[in-house]
Amino acid sequence: MTIPHLIGVHPAWLPPEAFSAIGSRRTLVQADESAPARTVRAEVADACARHGGAIAGPGEAADLVLALTSAGPLPPAAQAVAGPEIGAEGFLLARQDGVTVVLADDPAGLLYGFFEVVRQGAAAFGASRPAEAHRPALRRRMLDHWDNIDVHPVMGQVERGYSGGSIFWRDGVQHEDLSRVRAYARLLAATGINAVGINNVNVHATEARLLTDRLGEVAAIAAEFRPYGIRVHLSVNFASPVALGGLDTADPLDERVREWWARTTGRVYAVIPDFGGYVVKADSEGQPGPFAYGRSHADGANVLADALAPHGGVVHWRAFVYNHRQDWRDRSTDRARAAHDHFAPLDGQFRDNAILQVKHGPLDFQTREPVSPVIGAMPNTRLAVELQVTQEYTGQQRHVCYLAPMWSEVLGFRFRGPDGRAVADVTTSGGLVAVSNVGDDPYWTGHPLAQANLYAFGRLAWQPGLDPAAVLDEWIGLTFPVGQDGDAERLRGTLHELMDGSWRTYERYTAPLGVCFMVRPGHHYGPDVDGYEYTQWGTYHFADRDGIGVDRTRATGTGYTGQYPAPWSEVYESLAECPDELLLFFHHVPYGHVLHSGTTVVQHIYDAHFAGAEEAAAMRARWAELDGTKTVDAALHGRVSELLDEQVRSAEEWRDQVNTYFLRKSGVPDAHGRRIH
Amino acid sequence: MTIPHLIGVHPAWLPPEAFSAIGSRRTLVQADESAPARTVRAEVADACARHGGAIAGPGEAADLVLALTSAGPLPPAAQAVAGPEIGAEGFLLARQDGVTVVLADDPAGLLYGFFEVVRQGAAAFGASRPAEAHRPALRRRMLDHWDNIDVHPVMGQVERGYSGGSIFWRDGVQHEDLSRVRAYARLLAATGINAVGINNVNVHATEARLLTDRLGEVAAIAAEFRPYGIRVHLSVNFASPVALGGLDTADPLDERVREWWARTTGRVYAVIPDFGGYVVKADSEGQPGPFAYGRSHADGANVLADALAPHGGVVHWRAFVYNHRQDWRDRSTDRARAAHDHFAPLDGQFRDNAILQVKHGPLDFQTREPVSPVIGAMPNTRLAVELQVTQEYTGQQRHVCYLAPMWSEVLGFRFRGPDGRAVADVTTSGGLVAVSNVGDDPYWTGHPLAQANLYAFGRLAWQPGLDPAAVLDEWIGLTFPVGQDGDAERLRGTLHELMDGSWRTYERYTAPLGVCFMVRPGHHYGPDVDGYEYTQWGTYHFADRDGIGVDRTRATGTGYTGQYPAPWSEVYESLAECPDELLLFFHHVPYGHVLHSGTTVVQHIYDAHFAGAEEAAAMRARWAELDGTKTVDAALHGRVSELLDEQVRSAEEWRDQVNTYFLRKSGVPDAHGRRIH
Repeated sequence: MTIPHLIGVHPAWLPPEAFSAIGSRRTLVQADESAPARTVRAEVADACARHGGAIAGPGEAADLVLALTSAGPLPPAAQAVAGPEIGAEGFLLARQDGVTVVLADDPAGLLYGFFEVVRQGAAAFGASRPAEAHRPALRRRMLDHWDNIDVHPVMGQVERGYSGGSIFWRDGVQHEDLSRVRAYARLLAATGINAVGINNVNVHATEARLLTDRLGEVAAIAAEFRPYGIRVHLSVNFASPVALGGLDTADPLDERVREWWARTTGRVYAVIPDFGGYVVKADSEGQPGPFAYGRSHADGANVLADALAPHGGVVHWRAFVYNHRQDWRDRSTDRARAAHDHFAPLDGQFRDNAILQVKHGPLDFQTREPVSPVIGAMPNTRLAVELQVTQEYTGQQRHVCYLAPMWSEVLGFRFRGPDGRAVADVTTSGGLVAVSNVGDDPYWTGHPLAQANLYAFGRLAWQPGLDPAAVLDEWIGLTFPVGQDGDAERLRGTLHELMDGSWRTYERYTAPLGVCFMVRPGHHYGPDVDGYEYTQWGTYHFADRDGIGVDRTRATGTGYTGQYPAPWSEVYESLAECPDELLLFFHHVPYGHVLHSGTTVVQHIYDAHFAGAEEAAAMRARWAELDGTKTVDAALHGRVSELLDEQVRSAEEWRDQVNTYFLRKSGVPDAHGRRIH
Repeated sequence: MTIPHLIGVHPAWLPPEAFSAIGSRRTLVQADESAPARTVRAEVADACARHGGAIAGPGEAADLVLALTSAGPLPPAAQAVAGPEIGAEGFLLARQDGVTVVLADDPAGLLYGFFEVVRQGAAAFGASRPAEAHRPALRRRMLDHWDNIDVHPVMGQVERGYSGGSIFWRDGVQHEDLSRVRAYARLLAATGINAVGINNVNVHATEARLLTDRLGEVAAIAAEFRPYGIRVHLSVNFASPVALGGLDTADPLDERVREWWARTTGRVYAVIPDFGGYVVKADSEGQPGPFAYGRSHADGANVLADALAPHGGVVHWRAFVYNHRQDWRDRSTDRARAAHDHFAPLDGQFRDNAILQVKHGPLDFQTREPVSPVIGAMPNTRLAVELQVTQEYTGQQRHVCYLAPMWSEVLGFRFRGPDGRAVADVTTSGGLVAVSNVGDDPYWTGHPLAQANLYAFGRLAWQPGLDPAAVLDEWIGLTFPVGQDGDAERLRGTLHELMDGSWRTYERYTAPLGVCFMVRPGHHYGPDVDGYEYTQWGTYHFADRDGIGVDRTRATGTGYTGQYPAPWSEVYESLAECPDELLLFFHHVPYGHVLHSGTTVVQHIYDAHFAGAEEAAAMRARWAELDGTKTVDAALHGRVSELLDEQVRSAEEWRDQVNTYFLRKSGVPDAHGRRIH
C-alpha cells in the first residue's frame, strides 16, 4: 500500500515533519493482515524512508512497539504493559525502559495508537510513563458529505460546500483518480473518525442510483476509506422502492417494500462487505418519507434497519423534520418545536441498529441556539448529534470561526442540571456526526484555518471532554511546523489569539442574543435582517418598533420551553433567569429590557456589533504582522489575508446593517454616539 | 409564400375569424414584387381560400382594392381617392361606391393598410367614407428580445422571460423550424411593429458570435421577419473587437477598432442587406463600454453608427448606465440621477443614425416612476423610449396587469407643461422600443391575457394618442371572436372590466406611492419590503419608525428634481404640489403626512393594500362566472383561472407583508380596525 502524498495539496495536520519522531527511530509492528494493520506498517515504512529510521524485525530492538494483543506472543516490551481488556478501537500507550509501546485489541485501535504517537511527536519518546488507556467515548464518529454527482442547478456540486468541488464526483462522473479520497481518509483517521456518508442527504435522481446500478462507485470510494478504518455510508431516498424498484409504493409496512430493501441491501453487502449503512432525510424539505403512507418515522427507520441488521449495518435517520411551508402570519406554529413534537413520542420504538440523528439545536446550525430538547427526551433511542463543520451559517469558510467552543458547550450540556448526564453521555452509542467542510480545494477547506474545525470535530468525537483551546493548539502545532529559523512561539500565539475566540466574535457581529436567521435567503451569506421574516421557513424574529424576540414560553408563547425537563424548562421560561445569549430565542422583549450584563437589549446590539467588527479588524492586523516572516508559507499567508479582508468587510456590513435596522426601528440612539447610518 | 397557421399555438389577435370580412369578398391587389407586397397577396389568397372569397384580376370588379401608388396606373376606385403624398409606411383608407380602397406609397404601408382592414372587419365594408390617412407617429417601433442562445445559469433561456423558452434558440442551438418566428412576425406586423432586436442586451460569449461566425442564424431569423416588413437588430458586445477580433483594445477612437467595426458590419450587410442595426448596453451592470478607455458614450455609439451608416443601419445605444455597486450608507448617490448625469451633457454629440434608448423611468420599469428626465433634456439627440412589455416588476405574467394606461401616461407626459411637447413628440424619429414578453409558450405570453400588452404596445407605437381602453377593446374583439351562440357582450364586458384597471390594482397591492423595489431580490417576484434596502443596487426607501421615502429634492435631498425643467422641477420639489402617486419617490415624509386624497400616508398604505387585494379577488370572481359558457375556450379559461388563483394569493401576500411591515414600524393602527398581522 502507498501512503498518499499529493502534489499541490496542503498536507493539513499530517505534514512530513509530523512523522519525524517516528520516522527517525526503529519501530516494531506486530499485527495481522487486516487493512488497518497493513496501513500501520506502510505508514511506519513511509515515515522511516523519509526520516532515516527503520522497521525492526521480530526480536530486534526497537524504540517503538506497535502490537495487537491478538497477533501472536507479544514482544517483551509490550508484555510489560499488557493488562485487562482494552476494548474496541482503543489502545494503551506507555513508555518504559526506553521503549514506547502501543497495544491494541483490534487493528483500528492500533491505527489510532499510531496516530496518537504521531500527534505527540518527540514527546512520545521522552520520559517513562505508565500505560494509559485511550478509548473513544463515542462509538460512532462520522462525517457526512452533502456531495452531489450532478451539479445541482441551485446547490451546485456540493450543497453548502465552500471548498471547491467534490472529492468524489465532478459534473456527473466519479473522479478517475481517487487518491484525494485516500489522503482524506488518512487525515480523518488521524483525528479518530470511523464513518463517512458520501452523498447529499437530499438525494436527487442520479444520486439515488448509487444504491443500485452505480453501486460500483460506492465500492470504489469504500476501497479508499477502508485502509484507514473508515466505513462508508450512503444517503438513500426513502422512495427508492418506487423510483428504483418499480414498486407502486414505498410503504414501510408493505411486505414487497421490506423485501425490496432486504434484497437491495444484500446486494450492497455482496459488493462492500464492510458497508456502514444508510443515512436518510425523510419527510423533510420536500424529500419523501413514511408520512405519505400514514406511517411513523419509527416505521420508516425500522424497515431500513431490518434490511441492514443481518449485515451489521446501521441506519442514520435524521430528525430534521418540520413544516417548511409555514404561514408567517400564524404565530402558533413554532419550527423549533417540530423535531420534539415528531420524535419524542416515538422513543423506544426504533430498532437497535437505527440511530436517530438530531441537529444540535432545534433550528438549523445557527451561530447560537439552545441544545435540541429531543436529545434529552429519548432515553430509549440511540441518538447521534449532528453538527455542521461546513460553515453554512458561520461565515462559509470566508470568516475565521473556530467552532469547537460551541460544540464543546453542546456536548457538555446537561438536561437535568449539574448532576444529570451530558449530551456526550447520551450519545455514546449513537455518536457524533457532522457535515464535512472538505472539497477539492488545495487547502481542503477553502479557508486554510477552517481545517481546524475538521480536526477538532474528530478529536471531540473521540473525546468530548477535550478542551477546545488545547485541541486548537494541537492542530496549530501539527499543521504549522516551524523550521529552525522560524519563530514558532509567535506564529502559534498569533494563530491561537486569532482563532480561539473567533466564534464569539462572529456571534457579536451577526444576529444578536440568540435570535436566528438574519442571513440572506438562499445562499445564507451576509446580513439580511428581515430576509426570512415573511417567508414560509418558520424563522422569525418579530422585531417591531417596540421590541424583538420570539416568545417561546409556556405562559404566553409557543410553549417550546416545556419541551425541556427541569431545571431548563424553568430557566428558559423565566425572563429573569434566561441566559442573555439566548434571550431573544425564548422571549420577546422591549428594546429597553436590561440584560444580566447591565445594558439594554438595543444598546447591547450596538455594542456587540461595534465590538465584533473591531475584533475582526484586529484579527486581520495580527495576521498581517506575520507577513514576510519565515514562519508561514507565503501562499497560505496570502490566501488567509485575502479572506480576512473579506471577513472585515463582511463584519462591517453586518454591523452597519444590523445597527441601522435597529436604530431605524427603535429610534434609540447609541449611548456612545457612534456613527449608525 | 405560405401563411403560418400553427397547430397547437394560440392565434392571438389573428384567428381565422378575423379574416372573414376580407376572405369572403373579392379583392384586387395591385402592387410590386417586394416582400411585403407579396405577403399582402398571399394573405388575401389565404383568407379567400378559407372564407370563399376571390382575388380579382386586373380590371375586374372588386369589393376591396389594395394598391401601391408606384405600381402602374391605379385602378379606377383607387384613382378616386388618390391625393397628395401619403408617406413612408402610411396608407389611405376610403370606401366609395361600394369599394373599399387602401392606397399606399410603399409596400409596408400596403401591408399595414391590409391589417387595418382586418382589424376593422365588416365595418371596413359598411358605409361610405372619405379617404382617411393613417401614418405611424413614430418612425421606429421595435421589440427587443432578451433571449440567450445558451441557457444562462441564473437568467435562463430568456432573461426576464415568463413565457417558456425562446422562439429563436433552445439549449445552445437555433430551432430548426422557425415557423414560429414567421407567425410572430405576422402578429407584430398586424400591430405596426417594424423592428426586432433578437438577442439579450447582456451579450454573453456565445451570443457575441452572432455577429461573426453565427451570423447565418441571424440571417435565418431575418428571413422570417422580412415578409412582414420587420428589420432585425442584433445586440452586440462593445468589447467585440477584443473578444472576436483579436485586437488588444475596443477603444472607439482607435483606428483599428473603427476599421474592425466597419469591416465586420460590412460582412453583416453582405448577408442581410436589410439588417436594421445594433443594440448596445455598455458600461452597465458589468457590460464593457467606452469608460474603460476614457471615452464618452457618444464616442462609443458613434463608432458603431459610423460603421452602420453606409448601409442605412442605426445603433440603439441604451442609456441604462448607473453605479450598481453603490454603498447604501451613502445617501448622496442617487441612482435615479445617473442616466441624466451621464447623458444630458452629451446632447448633440451623437450621430444622426445613433439613437439613445432611454427607459421610461429613471430606475428600472417599476410599477410607478416619474418619466425619465433624460427624455426632456436632449433636444438634439434622436431618442427612443424603452418600455417593458415583459412584466418583470408587474406580475411576471402571473398577474393580470394591462400596462397600456401606464405607457399612455408616459407618452403623453409634457416636460414643459401643457403647451410643451409630449414624450411621443420628442421620440418621433427615435421611436418606441419594448422588451418583448413572447416565448415558445402555446399562448405566446404565458398568461393568455398578457397578449394584450404586446398588442397594445404595437398600437401605441403606431399612434401614441390612442385611448388604452379602446385598444383593449380592439384586442378583445379580435382575440375572442364569439360564435352565434356565445354571449359576446358578456365576455367582452368581463374582460374589459378585469383588465382595464388592472395596472392600478397591481399598484395598490404592491409598493406604495411611487416608492420602488419592494420585491424579492434576484427574481423580482413577490414582496420583500427590505429586500433591496441594504444592497448595492441603489434602490432604497429609507423607512424608519417615523416615516418613509426618498428625499430627491434640491433643497434637502439628492437634487434629482433639478433634472426636470419647470414646471415639473417645482411641482416635484414641492411637498404640497407633488402628486400623491409619486410622493415617496420624491420626498421622505412622516407616516402621518396627509395626502391630497385627505388620508395619511400610513393609512393610505393600509387602505390601498386592502383594496388592491379585494380587487384581485373580484377579478377572479368575475372570471369564474364565465366558466362553462361557450364564449371562451375551456383550456384558456382554465389557465387564466389558475393564474388568477396565484394573483389573489400573491396580492394577499403583498397586502399582509406590506401592512405588517408598516404597522410594526410605525405603530399606527388601521383606522378601520382590519386585521394586520
